[in-house]
Amino acid sequence: MPNRYFTSDNVAPASAAVLAAVREANDGPVPSYGADPWSARLQELASRVFDKAVSVFPVATGTAANALALAQLAPPYGAVYCHETAHVMTDECGAPELFCGGAKLIGLPAGDGKVDPRRLRAAIDLANEMGVHHVKPAAVSLTQATEWGTVYRPAEVAAIAAVAKESGLGVHMDGARFANAIAHLGCSPAEATWKCGVDVLSLGATKNGALCAEAVVFFDEGLTADFARRRKRAGHLWSKMRFLSAQLLAYLDEDLWLANARHANAMAAALAAGVRAAPGARLLQPVEANELFVALPEATVAALERDGFLFYRWPHEGLGGDVAIRLVTSYATRPADVEALLAALRAAPRPR
Amino acid sequence: MPNRYFTSDNVAPASAAVLAAVREANDGPVPSYGADPWSARLQELASRVFDKAVSVFPVATGTAANALALAQLAPPYGAVYCHETAHVMTDECGAPELFCGGAKLIGLPAGDGKVDPRRLRAAIDLANEMGVHHVKPAAVSLTQATEWGTVYRPAEVAAIAAVAKESGLGVHMDGARFANAIAHLGCSPAEATWKCGVDVLSLGATKNGALCAEAVVFFDEGLTADFARRRKRAGHLWSKMRFLSAQLLAYLDEDLWLANARHANAMAAALAAGVRAAPGARLLQPVEANELFVALPEATVAALERDGFLFYRWPHEGLGGDVAIRLVTSYATRPADVEALLAALRAAPRPR
Amino acid sequence: MPNRYFTSDNVAPASAAVLAAVREANDGPVPSYGADPWSARLQELASRVFDKAVSVFPVATGTAANALALAQLAPPYGAVYCHETAHVMTDECGAPELFCGGAKLIGLPAGDGKVDPRRLRAAIDLANEMGVHHVKPAAVSLTQATEWGTVYRPAEVAAIAAVAKESGLGVHMDGARFANAIAHLGCSPAEATWKCGVDVLSLGATKNGALCAEAVVFFDEGLTADFARRRKRAGHLWSKMRFLSAQLLAYLDEDLWLANARHANAMAAALAAGVRAAPGARLLQPVEANELFVALPEATVAALERDGFLFYRWPHEGLGGDVAIRLVTSYATRPADVEALLAALRAAPRPR
Amino acid sequence: MPNRYFTSDNVAPASAAVLAAVREANDGPVPSYGADPWSARLQELASRVFDKAVSVFPVATGTAANALALAQLAPPYGAVYCHETAHVMTDECGAPELFCGGAKLIGLPAGDGKVDPRRLRAAIDLANEMGVHHVKPAAVSLTQATEWGTVYRPAEVAAIAAVAKESGLGVHMDGARFANAIAHLGCSPAEATWKCGVDVLSLGATKNGALCAEAVVFFDEGLTADFARRRKRAGHLWSKMRFLSAQLLAYLDEDLWLANARHANAMAAALAAGVRAAPGARLLQPVEANELFVALPEATVAALERDGFLFYRWPHEGLGGDVAIRLVTSYATRPADVEALLAALRAAPRPR
Repeated sequence: MPNRYFTSDNVAPASAAVLAAVREANDGPVPSYGADPWSARLQELASRVFDKAVSVFPVATGTAANALALAQLAPPYGAVYCHETAHVMTDECGAPELFCGGAKLIGLPAGDGKVDPRRLRAAIDLANEMGVHHVKPAAVSLTQATEWGTVYRPAEVAAIAAVAKESGLGVHMDGARFANAIAHLGCSPAEATWKCGVDVLSLGATKNGALCAEAVVFFDEGLTADFARRRKRAGHLWSKMRFLSAQLLAYLDEDLWLANARHANAMAAALAAGVRAAPGARLLQPVEANELFVALPEATVAALERDGFLFYRWPHEGLGGDVAIRLVTSYATRPADVEALLAALRAAPRPR
Repeated sequence: MPNRYFTSDNVAPASAAVLAAVREANDGPVPSYGADPWSARLQELASRVFDKAVSVFPVATGTAANALALAQLAPPYGAVYCHETAHVMTDECGAPELFCGGAKLIGLPAGDGKVDPRRLRAAIDLANEMGVHHVKPAAVSLTQATEWGTVYRPAEVAAIAAVAKESGLGVHMDGARFANAIAHLGCSPAEATWKCGVDVLSLGATKNGALCAEAVVFFDEGLTADFARRRKRAGHLWSKMRFLSAQLLAYLDEDLWLANARHANAMAAALAAGVRAAPGARLLQPVEANELFVALPEATVAALERDGFLFYRWPHEGLGGDVAIRLVTSYATRPADVEALLAALRAAPRPR
Repeated sequence: MPNRYFTSDNVAPASAAVLAAVREANDGPVPSYGADPWSARLQELASRVFDKAVSVFPVATGTAANALALAQLAPPYGAVYCHETAHVMTDECGAPELFCGGAKLIGLPAGDGKVDPRRLRAAIDLANEMGVHHVKPAAVSLTQATEWGTVYRPAEVAAIAAVAKESGLGVHMDGARFANAIAHLGCSPAEATWKCGVDVLSLGATKNGALCAEAVVFFDEGLTADFARRRKRAGHLWSKMRFLSAQLLAYLDEDLWLANARHANAMAAALAAGVRAAPGARLLQPVEANELFVALPEATVAALERDGFLFYRWPHEGLGGDVAIRLVTSYATRPADVEALLAALRAAPRPR
Repeated sequence: MPNRYFTSDNVAPASAAVLAAVREANDGPVPSYGADPWSARLQELASRVFDKAVSVFPVATGTAANALALAQLAPPYGAVYCHETAHVMTDECGAPELFCGGAKLIGLPAGDGKVDPRRLRAAIDLANEMGVHHVKPAAVSLTQATEWGTVYRPAEVAAIAAVAKESGLGVHMDGARFANAIAHLGCSPAEATWKCGVDVLSLGATKNGALCAEAVVFFDEGLTADFARRRKRAGHLWSKMRFLSAQLLAYLDEDLWLANARHANAMAAALAAGVRAAPGARLLQPVEANELFVALPEATVAALERDGFLFYRWPHEGLGGDVAIRLVTSYATRPADVEALLAALRAAPRPR
């Protein structure tokens, strides 16, 4: 029976290899709070993956990773710039504000979900003119892949980072779907992060095969001061840390992460091809990772819903009578699932 | 080979049944963020365990459970009273202060690790006299079992709760070792909580057989308003919540939690019996759960350390030349481990 | 010599009557922290002015009044809606975020500086759909007069308040220039506040004749719970409160506040008339209170600056080659000051 | 008629010279937010007074000064050590916790109201052993004069500062009654502050002759980064700053502050002499500034209250049947006021 869940990649179970790694880690007593062998190996493996000695702090959720990372970059009286649709801005119930101690997130608009370096420049200039009356420009946060399923090229990240660095801002990347972005770009993880100016990365794994594992990855040890305390203070230091580290080890080992992401992206591409061929359907954004945004007539959307397909209707202006929906594929989406959705789409009624 | 870890119960691996439950939950797509069948079943099972319709919010760590629970009871300008050695006071790097928005924890002294209701009464009276200059009395937090390995009787909890309720304070129980306390008391979970005035419980599972699972349990639905937002905002809402709920289901099912705790307590009792029989050793507190505090000559402690036994030296005044150590057993401690430690203790040099 | 300061109304000194009141209050010992006769009289006088038993909490700055008032309406996980140019959003260095414990301010756009009730409705609907992932709609804040020098009619406030109340949001009015708005509207303070749905008002006095006096005015005593603690905790409870209360007594007594505001508005109107008559100058907003926004050629602006006139260049899009400036009058602006500026404007070079 | 207020020095009015300075500053328009001539002169005068280029940030209350100063020294995950009776610990409704973003104040006991350097050393050592589980030692705060009316000698401050500096902690002095301490010590302000290791001082003026004026004084410009933003964000940046600076100018000018403090101290000394001579009365602390703590029989205290004298009964253990009261003198206390109280004391009934 086809899987009809296209709501999110977080409805998927965990990869067998990740679960197996957890089982293997469940072996006798080991020191708690990260002083275990799995956690030590994770530091090494991550440093190989990123081609640099990195500092990795595993946590259980992406919201925790993002908010803790931003708290490290922005003081309570700071401004964090991001795209106006960024997850940190709209989907984390104010977690960055909590962990930063009340910093202000300032959302910048742009149709493709990416921060525009000129708008960033202008926003920083305004803040500097206003002085103490305005929160202090402290960081910029980029979502990779973006909330619109697009992917920043390294040069795009570099252009934003250049503006940020010029004014002393830190650069954070929310990589909840970092694997999907890398799979699309075909570049190395290093080229997509520290080589183009990223200071700290929220590395996602949960959506792409883990049970519950993300990591805050610092590319500069100088930025990690007291971060361990921040994590503890937020309740995100696990006593049995081995179970978190083991997941990430399995995830990064032998490129499971990239294999999973390539599959999810391929399923999205197959969906996109089918959508392009369907009369009355229209892709609203380039499909570069594992998310599609599709404009459809209301009758078509309603028919898909009646057929049991699960997805979100998405706020979008300027579609005339059409409705936007979001479709998300994952490492666990099968070709038959895609085909079932496309068949339903082709069979759905359309206004003439 | 004997296990020489007596540092904490969190060095233990997870119970096989808990791991099996996680594996079983790893089956196909399900709705995220807690709208899965495991999470629904957990509400039912917990309500049966506590003999009352309770609201259960799983999280990954005890620090998260405690700090979120207190944030629900205390406003930013509030006072939370607890024992001066409480985990929330000394071991959570200020997590309660973070999640409460800056509330003040006020530690009350007492030799047995328990909050003294008369001291609580006096502290509240002082606050009320001082009015707006003092933080507002808002909650009391009890650790069960206490940080000194002792266990509150229901009547003791009731006496404290009576003082609290009289002045409108909420009552929180930090049950990181709640199972050990129940195993000792032999009463029902209901008798040890809501029936003696507890409003919200941090129910621990990690130390007693889970991978990473605790839960905030509310005994009055009226207290849960917006708590789901607090959990999300703290980064403690898992997208793949089934993996957290499944652990707690296995933990509470068929009394695994109590069986595990009884074993840990029995191992502690066996250790205590051996310590009592050892010349020069002295128990500093009654051994009621799975922790022992032992005064020993420095030479004895050093010998145990040389033998590879792992435990903490513990701050303690008034021991003359002796040193205090803490020994913790767990569900995974074996009789042979206890015997090995006692043998080493008997063999250790003592000053004449 | 003319006063060339048009930067803000806060460059003005204090009204003689306000200073005299401070001097009179400097008479012997009185109880501190607000238990003095002046503070008691202020409650009575304010209740007469607003035609309702109000609760008045004096503080020294408008930022304090706004941020404390919002903290009373919005929880740390709450959303406060306001105009995107609101002072609370852009000019208080995150004070509302600090005092609310990290709440999020969400700015709504509109050309005239006023919150649009339909946009507010849509924003609340989006939040409700997103549930725990989104901060909780908690309050709306209106600036009266607005940051663009326009004034809400009572019916406009009522329309916004209706949307707010429907969803359980509180209504705050930032009345830094409340006197100027009332002077323009000609209605009673009651009609402009609680009668059209305002729950709490930041009543400004500093810009309009005080030394340093604002007040948080609650129209419903049910909303004041623990507010006194919030004020103390923010360092805004004066020990010698009489000196704050005495200023506000003098300000509200015998309509000094309205007389001052009428004068400031009249000076702005005179300026506006002159600007309208000046070739090449253009008013960007209706002049309803004591602020003017004027589009001028760069050469004209530069000439005024060379002549020693002080004002802010103001960010504004869509002016072609022109530059926007802000001119603010106060109770202390004299007709000669206005005339001097207009003379300079008429004499300034203009591109042909 | 004698003044019967001995509750606090904040019941006093303002010195005539301070009020005159405010009146003189009320002269025409000047730039706001501290860019006025009075604020500039204050920097110079304070630098002369402290014999060093200092950075002065005026605020309206002592709670604001203390909490802002500590926020500059302690991160949200930090520990601030102070005496257990310190004003910051018990009388500010959690203001330091608010402004520090949730830092923890840790109170150290000692009978004379002073921080004991050995206890401080032990507390820091414990924190360092506990690592990420404990808040990070960040600052120590000393109250000068102390809450028990005693005065730290420069050598005592230096001993505490040495412990602090060794571990990287900042040193704050709460100088709400700094003038009284200097008047007692007879040393220079420099000797009592930066020369013995104080990094930042809350300089009080309100209790000693101002209307509402305190200042945060930094002795090292390197510590002031972003402090102006913190002050603004807390609502403590006055727009008409001249009125705050003018008070402090008058206060520090021609040693008004020391003259006032000497008088207050002399009145306290006269009271103390009378108390010592009164049968049944007992001083609980050396009288070094302007506060007395006196143990008296209940009947005597009740008689003084009946006679209309105003003072606080003070919590104190170990007095047998006696009651402790606090008496505070100020610059405005007259010899006749002291004499009246002593006469009443002599006339009061005593148990035989």
